[in-house]
Amino acid sequence: MAGLVCADRLRARGAEVLLLEACPQVGGRTAGIELDGEIVDLGGQFIGPGQDRVYALAAELGVATVPTYTDGENLLQTETGRLRRFRGMVPKLGPVTLLDVAQAQSRLDRLARAIDTRTPWRSPNALALDGQTLRSWIDRTARTRGGRRFLTLACQAIWACEPSELSLLHALFYVKSGGDLSALTDVEGGAQQDRLDGGAYGLATKLADRLGGALRLDAPVRRIEQDGSGVVVTVDDGTAWRAGRVVVAVPPPLASRIVYHPPLPAARDNLLQRLPMGSVIKYVATYPEPFWRSAGLTGAALSLRAPIALTVDSSPPSGRRGVLLAFVNGAAARDLAARSPGDRRAILLGALARLFGPRAATPSNFVERDWNQEPFARGGYSAVFPPGAWTRAGSALRAPVGRIHWAGTETSARWYGYIDGAVRSGEAAADAVAVDAGDAG
Amino acid sequence: MAGLVCADRLRARGAEVLLLEACPQVGGRTAGIELDGEIVDLGGQFIGPGQDRVYALAAELGVATVPTYTDGENLLQTETGRLRRFRGMVPKLGPVTLLDVAQAQSRLDRLARAIDTRTPWRSPNALALDGQTLRSWIDRTARTRGGRRFLTLACQAIWACEPSELSLLHALFYVKSGGDLSALTDVEGGAQQDRLDGGAYGLATKLADRLGGALRLDAPVRRIEQDGSGVVVTVDDGTAWRAGRVVVAVPPPLASRIVYHPPLPAARDNLLQRLPMGSVIKYVATYPEPFWRSAGLTGAALSLRAPIALTVDSSPPSGRRGVLLAFVNGAAARDLAARSPGDRRAILLGALARLFGPRAATPSNFVERDWNQEPFARGGYSAVFPPGAWTRAGSALRAPVGRIHWAGTETSARWYGYIDGAVRSGEAAADAVAVDAGDAG
Repeated sequence: MAGLVCADRLRARGAEVLLLEACPQVGGRTAGIELDGEIVDLGGQFIGPGQDRVYALAAELGVATVPTYTDGENLLQTETGRLRRFRGMVPKLGPVTLLDVAQAQSRLDRLARAIDTRTPWRSPNALALDGQTLRSWIDRTARTRGGRRFLTLACQAIWACEPSELSLLHALFYVKSGGDLSALTDVEGGAQQDRLDGGAYGLATKLADRLGGALRLDAPVRRIEQDGSGVVVTVDDGTAWRAGRVVVAVPPPLASRIVYHPPLPAARDNLLQRLPMGSVIKYVATYPEPFWRSAGLTGAALSLRAPIALTVDSSPPSGRRGVLLAFVNGAAARDLAARSPGDRRAILLGALARLFGPRAATPSNFVERDWNQEPFARGGYSAVFPPGAWTRAGSALRAPVGRIHWAGTETSARWYGYIDGAVRSGEAAADAVAVDAGDAG
Repeated sequence: MAGLVCADRLRARGAEVLLLEACPQVGGRTAGIELDGEIVDLGGQFIGPGQDRVYALAAELGVATVPTYTDGENLLQTETGRLRRFRGMVPKLGPVTLLDVAQAQSRLDRLARAIDTRTPWRSPNALALDGQTLRSWIDRTARTRGGRRFLTLACQAIWACEPSELSLLHALFYVKSGGDLSALTDVEGGAQQDRLDGGAYGLATKLADRLGGALRLDAPVRRIEQDGSGVVVTVDDGTAWRAGRVVVAVPPPLASRIVYHPPLPAARDNLLQRLPMGSVIKYVATYPEPFWRSAGLTGAALSLRAPIALTVDSSPPSGRRGVLLAFVNGAAARDLAARSPGDRRAILLGALARLFGPRAATPSNFVERDWNQEPFARGGYSAVFPPGAWTRAGSALRAPVGRIHWAGTETSARWYGYIDGAVRSGEAAADAVAVDAGDAG
C-alpha cells in the first residue's frame, strides 16, 4: 500500500514513476478474494478515528466505509472453554482480575504518553524500557494469573506475537503511535470501528488502476545499485531500470534481502537484521446469514484457548451473508501451521463451533491466509522490535541511504502497523523524494 | 570455516564438491593480515580446552598452538578511569561487588547446567527463561551498581552485544555449550588459553589449498533452487551449478538473503528473521616489543570505560614484537563506527595509552576490522538470539530443508560462537550430506 500511495502521489506531482511489485497482485499486506460475489479481505482491513490519511484516501478513491457490527454482546472464552458474554471492550474477568488488568492498562498508557514516537530511542528511560520484554513487564505488573493471561492475549491480538518477543519500549511506542490502548483495541471509537466497502484491498486495486502502465507485477526487486548520478534496480528476471531515486516499500525482513551496491551502511544493516515480523493466520468463514446476530451476539470474541485469539464479524452491510473472521496469532500460528490443511480446517471449525454453536462448523466458504507463508510478506501484521533494537539501531529506520528512501507502515511514527501508517509512509516518502529531486535533479 | 571443513571432509570421503566463497578470500569470521612479517588475526583466533575438534584440525594441518601470555598482572579500568591490577580472572572490585558478581556467576552457571543444548526450547522453564533479556536478569539478580556494571561488561565481552538484546535462555545455552562461565572467560584452562601459530586464518588457507580447483572465490550465492532430483545454485555473476545437495555455511542473517525456490518453510524463515549478529570492531596495534611485559603486565585489560571492552596480548611467541588486540563491542561499536577513521584512531590510541602508558599511543602498525561493515559477515562474533527466538523458532535451526543443509558455528550445540563450533558444524553437515547421498543418491 505504501508503494502504491507513494507512486500515485509522485505521479500526481508530474514525476515519471515505475512501481515494481514483487507479487502477482498489488496490495502488500492487504489482499482480497471474492466469496459468494463479495470481496472479502484476507489482510489488513479495519480503520478507525485518527487514521485521517486512510479515510482521506478512501474518500478520494470513492470507497465508502462500513461500521463494524456491534449490536449485541461479545464473547470471552476462558481457558477451560467457558463462554462469558460482555458488552463493550471489557470482558467479565472477575473483579480482582478486572482491577488488575485495568491498572496494568492505565500504567501502560501512562508510560506510553512519555514516548517520543519520532525518536523512541531518545524517550526518557529508553535504555531500561528497551532492555526488557513486554512479558517481563507483565510478570512484574500484573498480580493475578488471570490478569497476566489476559494481557498476554491482548499482546497476541494487537501485535500477533508473544509478549516474550516484544520490547517494552516498542509496545509503548506502538500504543502511543495510535493514541492509547483503547484506541488500538476498541471497535466503536477505536481502530476496528470501520471497514472499507468492497475491502481495503479495493484501495490498492484503485490506486493500481490509476498507475496503469507504470506498474509491473511479478517483478521482485533483487538488486539496487546506486552511484552519485542515479540508481539501477534489477528484478528477478534480470530486467533493470535506471532512475534518480528509489523508494523501498517492503517489510523490513524483505528489505534486507535485496542486494545493495554499495552495501548498506552498518547502522541500516544492523536494523534490518533485528526486525522480525509477527505471525498471523487469518481465516474467513462465510455463512448464508450472520446467524450469531439472532442469538444476540456481535460475532466478536476473545479466546484464551488456542488456537483462535479473536474473531470479528465482517459481514457485508446488507446482512445478506454472514462473514466471520478468526485470527490465529503468535506461537499458535506457528503451531497450527505445522498441522496438515485438513487438520487445520477441523481444528478451526471446531473452535468456531465452540464459540458460536454448531452452525459455525458448516460454512459456505472457508479460506485461510497464512501470512508467514507469503514469500513477500513473511509474517504480519507488522515487524516487531525485540529488546534493544530501537536503542541500538532505531535511528536508521527512516534515514535515506543516498538515493534510497524507505517506506512501509513500519517507518510511520503515527499508526505504525496499520494501513493508515502505510499510507502516511507512502506520502512522506513521495514528499522526501520530491524535495530531493528538486534539490539535486 | 564451517564450509571449508565440510567440503574438505566430503572430498576426503570421495565426494565431488565445489565451495562457493562469497569473499575474495576464505576464512569467514577468521581473517589474517601480514604486519611486520607476521600473520596477525583480524577475526576469531583463540582456542582452549574442550575445543577438541579445532585442536584436532590444527594437528592434522600441522599448525602449532601458542599459549596466550599470562605472566604478570591484568588491568581493570574503572568507569572513572582508575587502573587496578589483578591476577587471574577476578578483578579487585571491592568485597561487596565481588561477592555480588560471584553469586551472579554461580547462579548463571547453575541455571545453565539445566539447559539442553541440542533442544534449548525444551529445557525446564524454557518459556520463562526465553521471555526475558539477560539485562532483566542482571537487574534482578545483582544487588550492587558495580556488580551490574561488571556483568554488563562481561556480556559485551562474551557476546559482543548489550545484555538488553540477549535472551536469558540464549545466554544460558551459550554458557552450557562451552561448559561454564569460567570456560568462556578464562585464559589458562579457558577459551582464550591458546592461539594458533601463524593465525587461525592459517587453518582456513591450508584447507583452501587442499581444495584447489574445487574452490571459487568472489562467488556470493544469490539463489538456490531445488526440486526432487537436485539443487541449482546461482552466484552473483549468474553462473549456476547443479548438485545433489547444498550446505549453506554463512551467518544466519546472510542465509536469509539468499533467494530460495521454493521459498523456505515459514518455520525456517521465521528463525532467520530473528537472529541478528553481535557487533565487534577488532583493533590490532603492533610495537617493536611487548613493552607492557617489562612493567609486569600481561597485556590483558578489562575496561568499564567505552569504547574498549577488553585488550589481549597477541605477540608472536618469539617476543620479537609486541602485538596488542583491543575489542570494541556492542553499542560502543555502533557509536565508534559513526566517527571518522581519524577520530577512531585517535580515540583508540588514547584509550590504549591510558591503559598501558604513552608508548601504546605510537604503534608501528595499527589496523582496524569492523565486522559490521563486512558485507558477508555483517557483525560478529556470532548471531545473538533475542528473547522468544529459541522458543518460537529454534527447532528450525539445524533441520535440513529438502536438499539444503545448514552449517556455521550457530548450528553447533557445542562451542556455539567459537571456531570449534564452526569446525564441528562443518563436520556434522558433511556427515549428514554423506548419509543423505548414501540413502537417496
